[in-house]
Parts: sequence; C-alpha cells; structure tokens
Amino acid sequence: MRRFTADAEVGDDLYGGDPTTQRLERRCAELLGKEAALFTASGTLSNQLAIRVHTERGSEIITDAKYHINFFEGAATADLSGVVLNPVDSPDGILTPCLLDAAVDRKRRSRPTSAPSLVWIANTVNYCGGRAISLSDLADLRAASLAKGLPTHMDGARLPNSSVATGASLAEYAATVDTVAVSFAKTLGAPFGSVLAGPAELIERASVYRLWYGGGLHQSGFMAAAALYALEHNMDQLDEDHAHTRLLHEFLVKSPAFSSPEPETNMVIADVSGTGLSSAEFVSAAAEAGVKVARWTDTQVRLVARLGVDEAVVRDAARRLHQAADRQPSLAMKP
Amino acid sequence: MRRFTADAEVGDDLYGGDPTTQRLERRCAELLGKEAALFTASGTLSNQLAIRVHTERGSEIITDAKYHINFFEGAATADLSGVVLNPVDSPDGILTPCLLDAAVDRKRRSRPTSAPSLVWIANTVNYCGGRAISLSDLADLRAASLAKGLPTHMDGARLPNSSVATGASLAEYAATVDTVAVSFAKTLGAPFGSVLAGPAELIERASVYRLWYGGGLHQSGFMAAAALYALEHNMDQLDEDHAHTRLLHEFLVKSPAFSSPEPETNMVIADVSGTGLSSAEFVSAAAEAGVKVARWTDTQVRLVARLGVDEAVVRDAARRLHQAADRQPSLAMKP
Amino acid sequence: MRRFTADAEVGDDLYGGDPTTQRLERRCAELLGKEAALFTASGTLSNQLAIRVHTERGSEIITDAKYHINFFEGAATADLSGVVLNPVDSPDGILTPCLLDAAVDRKRRSRPTSAPSLVWIANTVNYCGGRAISLSDLADLRAASLAKGLPTHMDGARLPNSSVATGASLAEYAATVDTVAVSFAKTLGAPFGSVLAGPAELIERASVYRLWYGGGLHQSGFMAAAALYALEHNMDQLDEDHAHTRLLHEFLVKSPAFSSPEPETNMVIADVSGTGLSSAEFVSAAAEAGVKVARWTDTQVRLVARLGVDEAVVRDAARRLHQAADRQPSLAMKP
Amino acid sequence: MRRFTADAEVGDDLYGGDPTTQRLERRCAELLGKEAALFTASGTLSNQLAIRVHTERGSEIITDAKYHINFFEGAATADLSGVVLNPVDSPDGILTPCLLDAAVDRKRRSRPTSAPSLVWIANTVNYCGGRAISLSDLADLRAASLAKGLPTHMDGARLPNSSVATGASLAEYAATVDTVAVSFAKTLGAPFGSVLAGPAELIERASVYRLWYGGGLHQSGFMAAAALYALEHNMDQLDEDHAHTRLLHEFLVKSPAFSSPEPETNMVIADVSGTGLSSAEFVSAAAEAGVKVARWTDTQVRLVARLGVDEAVVRDAARRLHQAADRQPSLAMKP
Repeated sequence: MRRFTADAEVGDDLYGGDPTTQRLERRCAELLGKEAALFTASGTLSNQLAIRVHTERGSEIITDAKYHINFFEGAATADLSGVVLNPVDSPDGILTPCLLDAAVDRKRRSRPTSAPSLVWIANTVNYCGGRAISLSDLADLRAASLAKGLPTHMDGARLPNSSVATGASLAEYAATVDTVAVSFAKTLGAPFGSVLAGPAELIERASVYRLWYGGGLHQSGFMAAAALYALEHNMDQLDEDHAHTRLLHEFLVKSPAFSSPEPETNMVIADVSGTGLSSAEFVSAAAEAGVKVARWTDTQVRLVARLGVDEAVVRDAARRLHQAADRQPSLAMKP
Repeated sequence: MRRFTADAEVGDDLYGGDPTTQRLERRCAELLGKEAALFTASGTLSNQLAIRVHTERGSEIITDAKYHINFFEGAATADLSGVVLNPVDSPDGILTPCLLDAAVDRKRRSRPTSAPSLVWIANTVNYCGGRAISLSDLADLRAASLAKGLPTHMDGARLPNSSVATGASLAEYAATVDTVAVSFAKTLGAPFGSVLAGPAELIERASVYRLWYGGGLHQSGFMAAAALYALEHNMDQLDEDHAHTRLLHEFLVKSPAFSSPEPETNMVIADVSGTGLSSAEFVSAAAEAGVKVARWTDTQVRLVARLGVDEAVVRDAARRLHQAADRQPSLAMKP
Repeated sequence: MRRFTADAEVGDDLYGGDPTTQRLERRCAELLGKEAALFTASGTLSNQLAIRVHTERGSEIITDAKYHINFFEGAATADLSGVVLNPVDSPDGILTPCLLDAAVDRKRRSRPTSAPSLVWIANTVNYCGGRAISLSDLADLRAASLAKGLPTHMDGARLPNSSVATGASLAEYAATVDTVAVSFAKTLGAPFGSVLAGPAELIERASVYRLWYGGGLHQSGFMAAAALYALEHNMDQLDEDHAHTRLLHEFLVKSPAFSSPEPETNMVIADVSGTGLSSAEFVSAAAEAGVKVARWTDTQVRLVARLGVDEAVVRDAARRLHQAADRQPSLAMKP
Repeated sequence: MRRFTADAEVGDDLYGGDPTTQRLERRCAELLGKEAALFTASGTLSNQLAIRVHTERGSEIITDAKYHINFFEGAATADLSGVVLNPVDSPDGILTPCLLDAAVDRKRRSRPTSAPSLVWIANTVNYCGGRAISLSDLADLRAASLAKGLPTHMDGARLPNSSVATGASLAEYAATVDTVAVSFAKTLGAPFGSVLAGPAELIERASVYRLWYGGGLHQSGFMAAAALYALEHNMDQLDEDHAHTRLLHEFLVKSPAFSSPEPETNMVIADVSGTGLSSAEFVSAAAEAGVKVARWTDTQVRLVARLGVDEAVVRDAARRLHQAADRQPSLAMKP
C-alpha cells in the first residue's frame, strides 16, 4: 500500500481536481450504489457533514445511546449543527421500529419543540462488540423511518465487516439508508480517510461544509490512493480477520477465567472478572505477557484482530492471555 | 394589579435605567438571597440566559427527562448555546445524587466528548403534577453536584408554589442552587415576565445576552410593576390555591371514575380511564359541562386552580366533572 | 395610553392566543400592506428574527456601515444567525444600487465564500441625523436587489417619521421591501415592543424563533394595547415633533457657536466646536443650563424632540443652550 | 518526498500518538519559537482553530480586506465561531497601527456591541502579489495590538517566502504574533497539511476543536513525513523560486503590453490591458501558447513560480507570453 500510495497520480482537489480522488469517489459511489461520494479526512468529518446536510438547527436525531455519535460526537453535533440527540437504550445496539416510535412519542411535540429530522444507525456496532446488524433489521427500520418521513444515515465506519460477516453487499446495505459513511482507516487498513456517499445534491452541499470545517485537502490523491488500495486488496482479508477473531474467542473461553459472547466480526469483548482482576489490572497483566488489549468497561476488555495476523499469532496471544489470567492471582497474593 | 401597573414610574432600561425595574430586581435578589437579579420577558429567556452563562459549547447539562428544558427548550438549548442535554428518567421527577452519578458515568468520557457543565433542576415539577421537591432532596443534590464541581440552575417557574407548600422560604430554596429563574406570569398572575437571580458576575453577563436575544425592553417598568404587585399580593394566595386544589381532588376522587394522586401544589392530574373515555374525549365532555381541563396524556387530564377561585367554584367544578364522567357512557351509547 | 393599556382585553399568546395582540398584528399587517405581522418585545428582536428567516448561515448581509445592525447588532447577528455583514460606507446613509453592486463585487466569490443573501436598509437613518430615505431611492434599491435575486429587509424603527416627513404611506414604504420592522417604543411613545411584517410563511417561521429566543410573552395584550394606542393617537403628533425640531434648529443656528444641517425628522445633530468645548463638555454645560442633550461624536451632540413638547419649551431650550455655549468660554478661562 | 513519505514510521495520532507527527510538531514549535504546535489537514483548519481559541462569540477580528480570511473564510468564521470581521482597506495589504486604531474607533462601542478580540495579519499577502511584510512593520503592529490588549494571529500560509525574501527567520516573524499558521502544501510542496503554533494552552484547546471539526487523522505520520521533508529540503529552494519570479518579471515587462510591479516573493501580478485583451481572454491566449496563468482581476493575471522550474523554463514561458500578447490583436482583428 505504501508504494502504491507513493506513486499516486495527483492534482489539486481544491483547484481543478485530483484525478485519484475523483477515481476513489466514483468507485465508492459505485460500490455503495449512490449517486455521489465525497472523500473526507475522517469518519467524524463524514458523520458531521451528514448531520449538517440532513438536519435543521434545533431538530432532533434519533439514534441509539451506544453509537459513536452519542459518545464521541455529541459535542461536535451540538456545536456545529445545533441539533439535539434523542438516544434510545436498545438492549443490543439495534435501533428497531418500536424503539424509534418510542423515541418520537416520548417527547411532547408542540411548535417550539425540536422535531425529529434524521434517524441514525451504526453498523457494525462497536459498543456491542462489533455486532453486524442484518439487512432485514435495517429494512424494517427503513420502512418505519420512511413512514415518518425521516431520512436515515448510517455510520458505517466498519460496514465492510458487516458486509463480509452477513454476505450482504455494501450496496445492499447502503440501499437501506439515504447516506452512508465508510472509513478506510479502521478495519481496511489505510492511514486515514473516509467517504460519505448519498444523493448528489446532499454530497455537493457537504463539499462546501467540508471546506468550511477545514477539510479541503490539496493533493488528496495520495491518501485516496491508499483508500483505493484498501478497497481493492483488504476487503477479502476481513474474512480472515473474522476467522481469527472466532479462533481467539474459542481459545480464550477454554479458561473459565474469561466469559465472552460469540464474536460476529473482528472484536472479542471478554469479561475478565473470573481472573480476579479489574479490567485495568488485566490490561497491565496482558501487556506484561506481551499482548495489547484495551480496557472496555470496569470488568471487560476488548481484543481486535488486525490485518496481517495469522493463526499462530492468535494461538500465541491466547496462550499469553491465559498466562496473564493465571499469573495474576499469585501476584495478587504476594503483597 | 392593572391600576398599579398603569401608575408605574418608568425610565428607559436600555438608557440610564428604569427605576421600577431596578426596584424589582433588588427586591428579587433580596427575596432569593442572591447578589443580583435580572428582569426578563419570559421564563424561557431566563433559562436560556442561565444556560448561556453557565456552560461552554459542546458541554452537557444533566437534567431530568420530565423537565421543561427537555420538552420545550431542547431546540433553543442546542441552537443558542450548542450544549448537549443528558436527561435521566427519574421515577418521580426528582433528580437524585444517584441518578446524577449514573448520568455522568453512562458516557465514555475522553477529551473530545462533551463534559458535564451544569446540573438542572425544576421545582415544582410540572410533569409530575406540580410536585414540590423538598429542601432536603435539593440539599443532597447540591452536595453531589458540588462534589463533581458542577454548578446548579433551578427552573423555578413555580418555585413560589413549592415554597408555600413546604414552608421553606424562596431564599432557602435558592440557596441550594447557583442561579434560579422564577416566573411572575404563571401562578403569581402577572401578565408576563420572569427573573433570573444569581452571582453578580453571571447576571451581568446574562444582561448582555439578553440584549443579543432581543430581550432588552425600554420602559420595562410597567411590567416590573405588575411583577412587584404579584410578589406583594399574590404569594399569600397560593396557599388558598393549594387548599382549593386539595379540595377539588377530594371531591373528584369520590367518584370511582377518577383516580389521582394527592396534589402537592396547585395541580390535579387525574386519570379518567374509569369514565370509559379517552383524555381527549373527557376534555370535550368537561367543556360541555362548563369546565376547562387540559389533556395531559392519553388517559390523564390536568386541572389547575387559579387566583380568584373560591370554595363554591371548586364544588361546582367537581360536580360538573362528575356529570361529565357520568353522562358520557350514556352519550357514548346513543350513537 | 396608561388607562387604555390597563383596560386591555387579554388572553395567553402562548396558549390559544391573546385577542389584543392578534388585533395589533392584523392592524399592522394592514397598515404595512403585508400578509402577516408578529408582535415582538423589541426592535432588535424583530431585526434578528428577520435575519434568521431570510438567511442561511455563512451568507452575507449587504448594508450600510451607519445602520444599527452594524453598530449594535453585529454581535447578535454573528452569534444567532452565523451570517457575515458586508457594510458599505455611503456618504449619506443611503444604500444605493451602485454601492450594492460594489459590495457584491468587491469579494471574490467562489463556492466556499459567503454569498449575499439579504439587502438591509434602515429608515430613518439614525446615524445621519434622522434622515428620511425617499420612496424613489428605495424603489431604485429594490429594483437592483431584485435583479440580483436578493430579498430586502427594512429596519424601520422610526419609519413613521419617514412617512410623516415625506408624505409616503407606511404601506408605500413597506412595498419596497420584503419584510419591515417598526418600533412602537421610539417616536411612537409606547413602553416597548415592535412589529415584524412580511410574507405569512416567513412570519410563521419567525414566530418559532421568537419562542426559542425567549420572546414568547403570555398576556402580551397589555403591551399590544399600548402599541395600538400609539398607532391610533401618536402618528399625527410626529408632524408636530418635526416642526419643533425645525424650530429648535432655526433658533440654535442663530448663534455662530453651532453648526447643524437642516433636520429632516425629529433630530438635530449640532456641531459644537464653535463653543470652544468638546461635545462631552457641552453635554455637561447644557445639563447645568437645564437641557438634556446627548453626546454624538467628539464634536457633535444630538437633540431629539419628543411627544408633549410645545413651542415655548423649544424656545426655552434654545435659549438655555445659547447660554451654555456663551458661559463656557469664561468658565474655561478661569482655571 | 514520495519515497520518504512512504517509509514514514507511523502510529495512531488519535490513540497513543503518531511518532512522525509528534516529531513534526516539535520541529515546527522549535522553528517558530513557540511552546507547542499542532499538525492540521489544511491552512483553513489552522486558521479556524486559531479563531476558535482566541475569540469569544460575537467579538470582532480586525484584519485587512485583502486577506484570505475576508474572502474565503468569512462564511466559516461566522458559522463556526460566531465572530464578526472588521476589515480595513489598506492601500497595500499591510495592517498598520493607524488602520488598527481606525478600525477600533469607527464603531460605537457599548455593552452589547462586539468588542475586538483578535488582530489578524497575513504574510505574504497573496492579494498584493505575494508581498512580504517586514519584521519592523509587524513589530509596530504588535506594539499597537498589545497596547489595546489584543492578541495577534498570523496566517502565514506562505510565511517561508517572507522569511526567504527578507532574511528574517521564521522564529523572528513568529515572535511578532501569538499564534501562527504555516502551510506545507503551498510553496513548500507537500501534498497537504499545515501547522498551528503558539502557547501550549491554546494549542491544547485547538486540538479538541480539531477533533470536533473532523480533523483528527489516524496515521497522520505519512503526511507529517512529507511536511518534514518539505521543511528540510524545500525551504532553500524558495530563494530560487523568487529569483525565477524576478527573472520572469524582467522578461515580461520588456514588452509594453505588460505592466507589473516588482515581485517580492514568488508571484507576478501583470496588468494585461496593453495586450488589448481582458484578463480572461489573455488566460486563454496564454494557454494556447502553452503557459498556464490565472485570471486575477478583470485586467490582471497572476503567475506563480513553482519548485522544479529552471531559468530555461522561465525564458521559454516569457517568450510564449509575449507571443500570446502579440498574436492576439491580429486574431482579434480577424472577425
């Protein structure tokens, strides 16, 4: 990818256009079955542009409390677009028609009140261990949203993982929403960047706000080349990532110290209470044993399989994590 | 009040000052035990100014989902101040230390995330049938807020009712928060207007935003006179309003058609399911019987006692509501 | 006016409507020849609502540097509506087609740049000594604005003075713009309040933002009654105000100490350099002599004729101002 | 640069940090003599972050009408930060103490009015043909700004050109302002990216808004590597660019068809009226003759020397432009 990127044909995306970026945007529009696509520097930028073009100030986005927008983009959403989040608490990260109805109904709606203007879905759901929402669940939500006259945006930072996991194509997924954002940087392995795809009129307006927000990049072609490479070569490897993730899970839960739900895509969320350690303590113990895991909640850690990992690496990691779990009680006894 | 208002001594509040408005502001600061007070055109304006001076854009207000700010001021809050509401769902409209902790903790807090900047309480709680939150509940919340370094604002549109109901003075209530807004228009009976009281530095800043928002009034003294009259003469009558409300409740629940919790201040929320009518149908039936009630939820109506009502009126209203309840089944049969 | 106001028939403008306010709004729509009108608490609120409903964020208002919007509403305009002011420096406070063209052309206009969205005129022009812009000047501007596809708003805080001075009706003036704001508080003598008139669709939207900005007033009928009284009784007296202003000017310039252009409406702007005093010093000297004048620039003061003044008062004021001018050199010599 | 970039050592700038980006930021802080520096995706982003951290909403930036902020960032400035631009019209693109005073004084300043919060300078001045403002002019402005208690920001997109032209170091220039933004993409030849340098506290806050605006980049090290390469290798070549620009100018004005001021850095602004063509027509004629020039005003075109150009290229370009100028009258005669 580095060589491919270094050899990119570039122009100036702000003056006359960058050919590689234009190629990436056409390719993404095609893959996602949308009229137009816009290359942006980050998934957050794609999401914030989507909010800006879909909503009026003071209106309301209905979403799930477990999505990125509610945790990490709440401040930006209020600051940049002046909209209100109306997050529901789904049990499993899936915004259903029933929850959508409840969210709309639970507020008294009179003239000065904020009216809903957008339905927001994330897929995969990071906070539910990389859950892949199914096409049929999304179709149900779509029907319910349309019945209320509401457009839908999908934060598909990891949509390629859902696609690989369920077998539904990116375009089939994208057909259930008006706009979709996909990241090249996360599971696809490009350095950074994201795409926002949707109706040409919205994408054209988004490109103006991209400039306002400081997201206009001159020779963006270098990064677009990396994204094109990722789309071409790394999509197929996601299947392996998922297989390695399942394998890691399988090995891990052989020890009673770990409990963890079956992974759907590329993440294992493991409860480490059985080790007698807090999640933060376990992160340290794992690091000592040579494995990098992330604290998730007070009792849970997250493990993510990345490109380039193979089965031997997975076996080794699991072994080290078992050591970390075993060793700790004795360490804990010492003082 | 009309004559008192018409005879007000006025100046220009925007040039040199209006003596009656200044008198009202001093009186309110004194009554509420705060350094300074600002006369504003509405409770919404007082609330929005409080938000503006307490918060940074992108930060978070922790409040209860049942307060006015969540229903009717969500749009303004996002639009004017760019802040995020983090509403908890209390069972009874009381934001407790425990709920406050939960609201802070349920979001992952990293640098870009919105941080809490304000705790928001309403008293009385309109959506809980005019519940008067007690001084000790507020003292508990205050301690919890201060422990987190968070200031508190009280939307006290009907704070005089809480004061009369619990016997705690306005100043005792106001001592549990940093800023408080009290309306002259609701239960106090002035045409319109509200006061925001708090530390002098915040009130000074609020007065600038009041001008920006178009709330600077030239000869505001006329309306300030009405407010002064209301503070002087109508506070004492709230006790009667509450007595009439209790009486209305007592009469009402003699019929099994109505179920209703004991009123705390000046509102009766009555479930009319027992009449066999929806709340909307019952509103019509009551109107036919000569009593104006408001639809509250699908099954509940709200009745509010106002200044000038006496016991005979209450008896008569209750009798008519019983008629409305009785008559309806037969009416319903007719077609 | 005070009695008339005190006897107003009122309702609640936020719930079901206030009959006197509705009567005022219909009367203003009629007088100004517009589809709809909205009563607001201040001229600033009317102006800010007009900006909000006419413009998109990031777009540009073309106006004159000498208008209220540029001096006193710049902060609010940027804060509430996120728009850019593009003020021209006319020699005389009249925004002409030629200046409009220049303002549009002086900025390079590419996609991310702000595009003009509104033309803004004030009439009378406070900062040009109450200049009454003529109907034909406004018709020329209107044609030029329409040719560019731009709507126009008139800040007509003192439009009644222009109307009385030029003989053109309020409706004739209002026909040269899309929306117009007129104040009841300034020359018309009501305590406070303003009206925004224009197309029904814009006024309807403005009424929502009025609530967001805290400008919803419950029993607004009291203040609407004062405004109705002012429209009925005080319009005719403006002619007298203007005659008194001309008289004051005539007396004043008999002394070589004062130089001042012929007044067009109700203000005299006098250069006091000839007195050997700064404007601030002259304000003090005049106050000692019993006349209240306002500092305008370092060398100018402003005198405004108000309702209730008669010829004797004017003569007396002029005499005292001459005294103030005469006395000062000797005072100045003493130290 | 492409190879250097492709071989960059990278991490994740949003999780734990990217070593190459950190190296770039330290290097820029050092070069500019500031406490801290932040890598951003564009000059617009650096500028908008500077505005955000320096100003309060509703306050005022004093700048020159000929700077980028007034032309291309007006919309973003109003939208993102709610501030007002107060642009002066300098004859030559240099904001002087005298113009600064005039800008502050020309507005009546009362409480609700916007107060100045920032002085904004650009260097070089693109719209004045790449003028390099001298260190002593900036020192004078700095003294005047500090006397008013105002901080200063420099939009130094092409500051390296000023530095090379005047011999003052980047750090000497940066010492005349509080914050400075320098672009790697323009004359330095990196694909894209910019740096904002200043006090650590402001840069820390800017990094939060960078995330809100969608400017957080994961493996930003690739682009940081290009920027490091540009700083290391391309600074010295600017001197050659300037020499080529002077040479181009010398050749060009040998024909009476062109008039053009002596270039100071890397741009020639040429008036083409003498060719009998409009600037747009001349752009076409030059393109036919094989030289790309940009329309600047109705009568002027801009020519920019870039990295990699040599003397032969310059001679050839001048010859072709003379041809374009000569050929055109005859072409113009034909029809």
